[in-house]
Amino acid sequence: MPYRFAHRMRCVPPSFLGKLFAVSTDPRIISFAGGLPSSSFIDVDGLADASRHVFEEEGKEALQYSTTDGYLPLREFISHRYRKRLGLDIPPGEIQIVNGSQQCLDLVAKIFLDRGDPVAMERPGYLGAIEAFSLYEPSFHDVAFGADGPDIEEFGRVIRKVRPKFFYGIPNSQNPSGQTYSYEKRKAVVEVLEGSDTVFYEDDAFGELFFDGRPRKPVKALAPGQCILSGSFSKIIAPGMRIGWICAPAEILSQFNCAKQAADLHSNFLCQKVLSRYLETCDLDGHVRRISAAYGQNCRLMCDLLDDMFPAGMAHTQPEGGMFLLATLPEGLDSMRVFEEGLKGGVAVLPGTPFYVSGGGESTIRLNFSSMDDERIKEGMGRLARVVRALV
Amino acid sequence: MPYRFAHRMRCVPPSFLGKLFAVSTDPRIISFAGGLPSSSFIDVDGLADASRHVFEEEGKEALQYSTTDGYLPLREFISHRYRKRLGLDIPPGEIQIVNGSQQCLDLVAKIFLDRGDPVAMERPGYLGAIEAFSLYEPSFHDVAFGADGPDIEEFGRVIRKVRPKFFYGIPNSQNPSGQTYSYEKRKAVVEVLEGSDTVFYEDDAFGELFFDGRPRKPVKALAPGQCILSGSFSKIIAPGMRIGWICAPAEILSQFNCAKQAADLHSNFLCQKVLSRYLETCDLDGHVRRISAAYGQNCRLMCDLLDDMFPAGMAHTQPEGGMFLLATLPEGLDSMRVFEEGLKGGVAVLPGTPFYVSGGGESTIRLNFSSMDDERIKEGMGRLARVVRALV
Repeated sequence: MPYRFAHRMRCVPPSFLGKLFAVSTDPRIISFAGGLPSSSFIDVDGLADASRHVFEEEGKEALQYSTTDGYLPLREFISHRYRKRLGLDIPPGEIQIVNGSQQCLDLVAKIFLDRGDPVAMERPGYLGAIEAFSLYEPSFHDVAFGADGPDIEEFGRVIRKVRPKFFYGIPNSQNPSGQTYSYEKRKAVVEVLEGSDTVFYEDDAFGELFFDGRPRKPVKALAPGQCILSGSFSKIIAPGMRIGWICAPAEILSQFNCAKQAADLHSNFLCQKVLSRYLETCDLDGHVRRISAAYGQNCRLMCDLLDDMFPAGMAHTQPEGGMFLLATLPEGLDSMRVFEEGLKGGVAVLPGTPFYVSGGGESTIRLNFSSMDDERIKEGMGRLARVVRALV
Repeated sequence: MPYRFAHRMRCVPPSFLGKLFAVSTDPRIISFAGGLPSSSFIDVDGLADASRHVFEEEGKEALQYSTTDGYLPLREFISHRYRKRLGLDIPPGEIQIVNGSQQCLDLVAKIFLDRGDPVAMERPGYLGAIEAFSLYEPSFHDVAFGADGPDIEEFGRVIRKVRPKFFYGIPNSQNPSGQTYSYEKRKAVVEVLEGSDTVFYEDDAFGELFFDGRPRKPVKALAPGQCILSGSFSKIIAPGMRIGWICAPAEILSQFNCAKQAADLHSNFLCQKVLSRYLETCDLDGHVRRISAAYGQNCRLMCDLLDDMFPAGMAHTQPEGGMFLLATLPEGLDSMRVFEEGLKGGVAVLPGTPFYVSGGGESTIRLNFSSMDDERIKEGMGRLARVVRALV
């Protein structure tokens, strides 16, 4: 029988995320295309201990239904860490637990966007956000994202002219570019926002992963009532638990809570408790420092290889943190071509095109540097260099 | 600043589910209002064992990102159990893991419903479904649900006249009524569906919980290409893990997968593995038999008390399984009044009204019989009887 799907299903861009998982399981291919944190930093023993305690001491409760907003001690931990690390005062009542920050993308879009509503984001912007927002059929507007943040003139024009319901951005180590807003850009963004009724949706999946260990002040600190801030344990503890969070002013959070309850009642309660127990005893600062240092080394290695082994015209961003960089191909090279030839040559990259809502990215590729060691990076970049040289 | 929320947020009925959790934690109140399975049947030790094995043997993998469709061995288990228990042939490729069957409600609505699209369901119908569907702003149509299933004449009229995108029903031990479609009604439903382009969305959260242990043939078995079938481990293993599933024809599942990926990438992978490991070794048939027998005793006790202790005019449904029954109050009594006076008298019930999309339910209350033992049921029903007698 013919199924009558909703119109929104025609608005989803063809997904790359799914295909990438297939590539990432083929042992012959070295993949820089995915977005996995390093498995070597997942503290299996520590989480196993925490899990054993939860089963022993509060197993029945951890396995029953719970409340939509999430486990209070976990929200208290998040609140406390914001205060300690960033001087940010976010009470537990303004924090809600979600299934990884991807769920924030879905639910924030759900509570704000009617069909045709304007939404704005960075150009290039995170493809998972583009996918999530697309299902609410908004009109997309984008703002150029440079080495130190968004182009403020374009940002101002978009905010004033199209009045987006919200602007979605990743100020810290952006996905896909790896670039970070300067403090000046953060202030300039907030100046533009003042007096507008556009919400700033600040996705901070990577804020703990600055190579220099120095925290950057969130936009949320400069405009608390106008900001939604999301975070995640996926990049610093374990993505398989699917635990992230959202911070928002009470009025927004109440709508969000309603959407979350309708979406799945609450997030996995067992893992909320295990994580909460784990965080009580682990040295998170030290753990995050070790991850960041390792990713920093990987990133520098990859940048050096891009500078040394590739033909003239190859350029790249200079990440201060996170898991990705964006490389620009020598003139005339198409990223889809590099993607396809790369697979034949045993290396996967992510073409830039799915990061654009209105075309672009044909000359860029995103490279992940978090998920493998030196040797694999060297081998993979060697393969990629051969592919690029052959195509030039 | 004034936040500009989406129109859909005005379409959500005021939620009862949240309030009920608050009531359920007040130790002075005996609550028949919630929907918790009995904590005494949660096999904490068995799940702790399974968890330990997963951490020891495949911890890194269980804690990493995974695929959207869900852990294959778990989907194979579900497929195998359908074949063994119901003679139903659903390959693992037509099964996808979700965060409890509540997430199916959200995502099925998302892939099918544009604003104003017709959707149909039982009258009364599950309030969690009403909440989830409402956010997609459909036009609701309902079909009277009697002791042995939907009124076929009304069902036929709705299917032919309004051509709902899908009809949502709970053929086994429905929520809130506790009633079950007879086999004849299932066949009659399928006869009406034939030649229509309405999908039948069969929510089977309670199918394992028939007091007599006898499985009922799902509607999906009679019209596989036209049915979506959802199930859940929440009622038989542990709700806190938030693991359920959907079975659907490939074309529907591909759209569903796209919506699930945008919603939260994938369900908690650690708990999928723990559950899968647990199911390999536990005696699920025996476990389910013990739960069903206990719920059956509770239900009979509650029915007897309703018959014996309450004023004339009090009536109730006769569940064959599940966790709920629906009681009709003596004429002139209002369920909201009983709800409020009940709280003062130390007993919580759920008024019937939130189970209706177009008014009704003022004279009914839903009573849960799964979450407590004999003594609490007797004490709570005694309190409720006093409240009702005082109001008559």
